[in-house]
Amino acid sequence: MGYFDAASAVPLHPVARQALLASLDEGWADPARLYREGRKARMLLDAAREAAAEAVGCRADELAFTSSGTRAVHAGVAGALAGRRRVGRHLIVSAVEHSSVLHSAEVLEADGGTVTQVPVNRAGLVDPAGYAAALRPDTALACLQSANHEVGTVQPVGEVAELCRAAGVPLLVDAAQSLAWGPVEGDWSLLAASAHKWGGPSGVGLLVVRKGVRFAAQGPVDERESGRAPGFEDIPAIVAAAASLRAVRAQAAQEAVRLRELTERIRARVPQTVADVEVVGDPERRLPGIVTFSCLYVDGEALLHELDREGFSVSSGSSCTSSTLTPSHVLKAMGVLSEGNVRVSLPAGVAEEDVERFLAVLPGAVSGVREKLGAPTAPAVQAGPRELLVDSLGKRCPIPVIELAKAFGGVPVGGTVRVLSDDEAARLDIPAWCEMRGQEYVGEEPADNGTAYVVRRTR
Amino acid sequence: MGYFDAASAVPLHPVARQALLASLDEGWADPARLYREGRKARMLLDAAREAAAEAVGCRADELAFTSSGTRAVHAGVAGALAGRRRVGRHLIVSAVEHSSVLHSAEVLEADGGTVTQVPVNRAGLVDPAGYAAALRPDTALACLQSANHEVGTVQPVGEVAELCRAAGVPLLVDAAQSLAWGPVEGDWSLLAASAHKWGGPSGVGLLVVRKGVRFAAQGPVDERESGRAPGFEDIPAIVAAAASLRAVRAQAAQEAVRLRELTERIRARVPQTVADVEVVGDPERRLPGIVTFSCLYVDGEALLHELDREGFSVSSGSSCTSSTLTPSHVLKAMGVLSEGNVRVSLPAGVAEEDVERFLAVLPGAVSGVREKLGAPTAPAVQAGPRELLVDSLGKRCPIPVIELAKAFGGVPVGGTVRVLSDDEAARLDIPAWCEMRGQEYVGEEPADNGTAYVVRRTR
Repeated sequence: MGYFDAASAVPLHPVARQALLASLDEGWADPARLYREGRKARMLLDAAREAAAEAVGCRADELAFTSSGTRAVHAGVAGALAGRRRVGRHLIVSAVEHSSVLHSAEVLEADGGTVTQVPVNRAGLVDPAGYAAALRPDTALACLQSANHEVGTVQPVGEVAELCRAAGVPLLVDAAQSLAWGPVEGDWSLLAASAHKWGGPSGVGLLVVRKGVRFAAQGPVDERESGRAPGFEDIPAIVAAAASLRAVRAQAAQEAVRLRELTERIRARVPQTVADVEVVGDPERRLPGIVTFSCLYVDGEALLHELDREGFSVSSGSSCTSSTLTPSHVLKAMGVLSEGNVRVSLPAGVAEEDVERFLAVLPGAVSGVREKLGAPTAPAVQAGPRELLVDSLGKRCPIPVIELAKAFGGVPVGGTVRVLSDDEAARLDIPAWCEMRGQEYVGEEPADNGTAYVVRRTR
Repeated sequence: MGYFDAASAVPLHPVARQALLASLDEGWADPARLYREGRKARMLLDAAREAAAEAVGCRADELAFTSSGTRAVHAGVAGALAGRRRVGRHLIVSAVEHSSVLHSAEVLEADGGTVTQVPVNRAGLVDPAGYAAALRPDTALACLQSANHEVGTVQPVGEVAELCRAAGVPLLVDAAQSLAWGPVEGDWSLLAASAHKWGGPSGVGLLVVRKGVRFAAQGPVDERESGRAPGFEDIPAIVAAAASLRAVRAQAAQEAVRLRELTERIRARVPQTVADVEVVGDPERRLPGIVTFSCLYVDGEALLHELDREGFSVSSGSSCTSSTLTPSHVLKAMGVLSEGNVRVSLPAGVAEEDVERFLAVLPGAVSGVREKLGAPTAPAVQAGPRELLVDSLGKRCPIPVIELAKAFGGVPVGGTVRVLSDDEAARLDIPAWCEMRGQEYVGEEPADNGTAYVVRRTR
């Protein structure tokens, strides 16, 4: 099996399946009821809460089960902001947070609050100094992921938590990608996570709110889950989620070493076997199972399609794979190439042969897509006008970059090419092409129906 | 098995279990992804949506799966109100709606909107004229349950929908209690329901928004479920929910007849075998499986405890079984006795013998509780002062009513008893006692540390 999209979801862990089946008969009743069936359900729920709290490293009464990681983030951000409404309505997030955090930030902004996005470097890494600089007297909350979901970069949560703690600001950690590997370091205040990332069922998230953190649940509430997650608990799913968290944690140290070696192999081999590839994300501070790269002159959706035909399931942050036709906000914030983007996220237990087979198949898949698109192989070197205009209006990623590359040989060193494009990905990919090719990106200018991106030939 | 709390939750239907197990292997991936595993998940989700829509009687693209019935109500009310924000911020609900509707109404009120509660009669039935009178030019939404969850009374949804339609106001129907029995009649605009009421897993609700209904989802949203239910879908649970809805519907007509006969038997026999019982809820317009009664001089929690010891699981709307120590808002709105309240809600397939055994056990359980509480058996008839004061301050339901009954024989016909009480249930139960005993309830007056309830002896 070539399912390499573990950062999205993984199949149910055998231990989760077993726990789910075992609790279907005992966990269906209302745990708030005092009769037999209710008491059994309550016992299962309590035991699952204890187990999950132990894995998180918190008290059981600090942990609520939500219906997804997304819901945990939504409820956590809204509740923490409301709990500190008197302090102010300023929220700090990193530029590479999961969409559930960014959507929560949009809601705050639409409601009159303010949001500071802390930038990341080209590896997707947050600088704690960025958080320090963003903290204000009216800051109600800061959010930082433990690790990035698209490129695997592990964030300095401990340092940021310390800065926030010193400023009296709670830090919410989106631990969706890392909780399977171990507890989150540092003195954070709130934590959100999602069970289907660690082999639990979909439909279970965790929201942890440390004692002493001001929290006011928003929206209609009921008495379930400390008033933090309304609606009847899905106890069999919760039991399965807690059981699989324990199970994956028991293997985490060993499996992390194995997966890290496999992703290291991909990081090293792909640039050797595929031309014009940029491997993105921090090479050191990274999750064991995620590796992400972008391929110049490649249509991400076509490449995913090719890989799917070969039996590999991966995801992409390319604009063509997004319903909004914009590149992933993570790749944008990093300022890296977005075309032909592939995220490989290996599930625990993945077979080494499958990774090897992927590495064997990838070069052909990439060159197949490039051929279909008529990507340039080597730039033609010929004298021509000092200024050239490439009209790529109406054409989508990766065509504008391909047309730039094809025309580029036509100008002499010192000459410029202006690419007219109305594709959002060009803004990211033309500078990235310059970086990869050692050419000078002059900048962008407004143009009729789009934007002109100006590149100067330096060699 | 004596599990008689089907209105709260029922065990997983065998068909649901089968569907859940069958889809665990195919339904775990992200249905938004284009690769193999994602496409399989999408197919399962689409098929479940078609099946659920057919059972509801709506188009598949009008139906979103939520993480619970409660969430469906919260999202439905908030979205419908926001969609008609320009029209106004007035909401109409019945006084006997589920707490999820009333909590949503509280959120609107806290945010500056207004809410009209349409009253019910002593049987818990809404009068459509009440909705007609409540409709205003600034009414954004009306809500009405298809049937009441505590007493089983079936509401005139069709008539209310017609009135709302004529006024251009959308009607949201909370169909949680009735959807297992059949589609909701009439021209409603939104509908919410909950799978664990019909043998599906917990963690699945339905929100239907008819085409043409203005709807603006509130809070942070994502692209899942038409933007109406953020968070990764739990597809195996959704598949199981849809499968069990079809399964229970196939048996609904036949099972309704059988359960109706069994609840009719309880309605008729309990007043014959237990003294001082009030059977509540509409005797005709009612769900097949629910029957509710209240027992004078009985502590609801103690009675539930006795019944649990005998192997019967029922619920109660008595104040002593509530965390807030107030009687159920449904019983309050109906103005019926709340002490010693028992809701029997029979699950489909319940054995006739179990119902017979319940009827055999109940009288002893009730008299056991009454004995422990020292409830009066017959009023002592003796001359005494024309006015008597009973100080029940600090005593909880059913003690104030018991003390009233014991003292009552001490005043002559025409005399009055004043009961001092700070228990919320007394406000409901003392008038109900008067009604049952044919005595005159004079009214209530503020008193030190509580309220004085005045009763005049008329016979």
